[in-house]
Amino acid sequence: MSTRPMFARVAFIGIGLIGSSLARVMRRDGLASEIVVASRRQETIDRAMELGLCDRTTLSAADAVKDADLVIICTPMSTYKEIATAIAPALMSGAIVTDVGSVKAPTFKSLGAALPDYVHFVPGHPIAGTEHSGPDAGFPELFENRWTILTPAADTDPEAVERVAALWRQAGAKIEMMDPHHHDQVLAITSHLPHLIAYTIVGTADDLGEDLKQEVIKFSASGFRDFTRIAASDPTMWRDIFLENRDAVLEVLSRFDEDLTELKRAIRRGDGDKMFDQFTRTRAIRRGVIDADQA
Amino acid sequence: MSTRPMFARVAFIGIGLIGSSLARVMRRDGLASEIVVASRRQETIDRAMELGLCDRTTLSAADAVKDADLVIICTPMSTYKEIATAIAPALMSGAIVTDVGSVKAPTFKSLGAALPDYVHFVPGHPIAGTEHSGPDAGFPELFENRWTILTPAADTDPEAVERVAALWRQAGAKIEMMDPHHHDQVLAITSHLPHLIAYTIVGTADDLGEDLKQEVIKFSASGFRDFTRIAASDPTMWRDIFLENRDAVLEVLSRFDEDLTELKRAIRRGDGDKMFDQFTRTRAIRRGVIDADQA
Repeated sequence: MSTRPMFARVAFIGIGLIGSSLARVMRRDGLASEIVVASRRQETIDRAMELGLCDRTTLSAADAVKDADLVIICTPMSTYKEIATAIAPALMSGAIVTDVGSVKAPTFKSLGAALPDYVHFVPGHPIAGTEHSGPDAGFPELFENRWTILTPAADTDPEAVERVAALWRQAGAKIEMMDPHHHDQVLAITSHLPHLIAYTIVGTADDLGEDLKQEVIKFSASGFRDFTRIAASDPTMWRDIFLENRDAVLEVLSRFDEDLTELKRAIRRGDGDKMFDQFTRTRAIRRGVIDADQA
Repeated sequence: MSTRPMFARVAFIGIGLIGSSLARVMRRDGLASEIVVASRRQETIDRAMELGLCDRTTLSAADAVKDADLVIICTPMSTYKEIATAIAPALMSGAIVTDVGSVKAPTFKSLGAALPDYVHFVPGHPIAGTEHSGPDAGFPELFENRWTILTPAADTDPEAVERVAALWRQAGAKIEMMDPHHHDQVLAITSHLPHLIAYTIVGTADDLGEDLKQEVIKFSASGFRDFTRIAASDPTMWRDIFLENRDAVLEVLSRFDEDLTELKRAIRRGDGDKMFDQFTRTRAIRRGVIDADQA
């Protein structure tokens, strides 16, 4: 006799890298009796079906969430408002709605505010990913030993929160509960600023003359290639992140700017001691990352 | 009957990540009848001996180069002048002197100018490395499928250049001949700017309060950790790079600054189209890196 699945019907709205990875976990471990996938593009839902990620597909988000006890929104954040409005009337009482977006405070307005009182809203963010996008890019091990941050409001039903947490734990993730504003501040530093910088530096190289550009690609193994990987991330998703987390990003960017100006001055003056000090203390952070098992 | 080794006596001045990796190649493939390692620290040469990287060690660079037909300088660039002065009287006629430093134009002054006319100076730069340092960090596969750039003066004996090229090819490297000034410009973009940015951003995080810093480390998998790896590179080596390649680095840094200001403005204004365009064109560079087999 098999154990009862965690969920009866799960609806994925959007099935890219994150959604399809989580769907693969649910298929692998039999966590849902039925999985329905909705996407705006026929091609995407066809592919989700071919990949065996779900039992049923639809082009309508409202159709997908009908009778679902768990709805997982895995689309770019710019679509949240429209999706929330579309699914709200179709949601069943007691359903859990969660998401995987990279900025959390705005989800309470864009998503939470449009949902009926009789559903549980548990915003989430798995700190995992690759530079690849789409349903083919997913794999079930993506979340293993990575953090998933949940940012529910204080008055959210603890049982609903625990069901979402249990799902992520089943995917191998470690769970952290966090205030959504604090989440957005931390991620502005750990994720949004690094991506912004990587996009910028790769763009700077792209502006070079064609000959020089080819040489930059040829000799990219010297540091540049790591930035090209980051700067190959999904453009829609990242546009939305910078639109949604504008203030926190601009704040850390101005700190970064100050620090860069200081190092620039050290280079201009030939101040080797200052550079050596700076380059030494950054090593301690790397050791922290390694000790935290996140390297 | 074994084939004759490429070199009779090879002297390594400095035996860190790069030097010890190349020494391992030479040992593996029997490329030298004898390898001598010189370093200023007793501990380092003892370790080189324990690791089986050489036949003989010495604390004196001058002693090491005696009767050597190949001298490979693998020390931070700030030591070049002192080393050149020390070894010049001890070099044998016809010896080849090469190096592995990351900035090439200045080597003609710091190293080349002090060498006697009867030796061949062939500056080199293997585009390979890791964030680890020291003789234990080396491994013989480090150079495989990576570029090594050689920047000899136009009047250098072609046979001497070819012998150095052949050594690097034996290590699995692809060879590129380049003007030293052009090398320094290209590397300012592909290597020096990325490292400067990584050192800066990790330093910015290090300036945060202790609690926030711990969270940044905890959630570093979201982009930041790649920067911490780059920013863990050897501080002495990188100080020297920014001292030696100051002008080219400041030039690309000012282009980067302009581009970052433009993106910052797009974020402040909520200009999603501009961001989307920028984030889309950087993907093409990533494809170039993958196509060039440097990913």
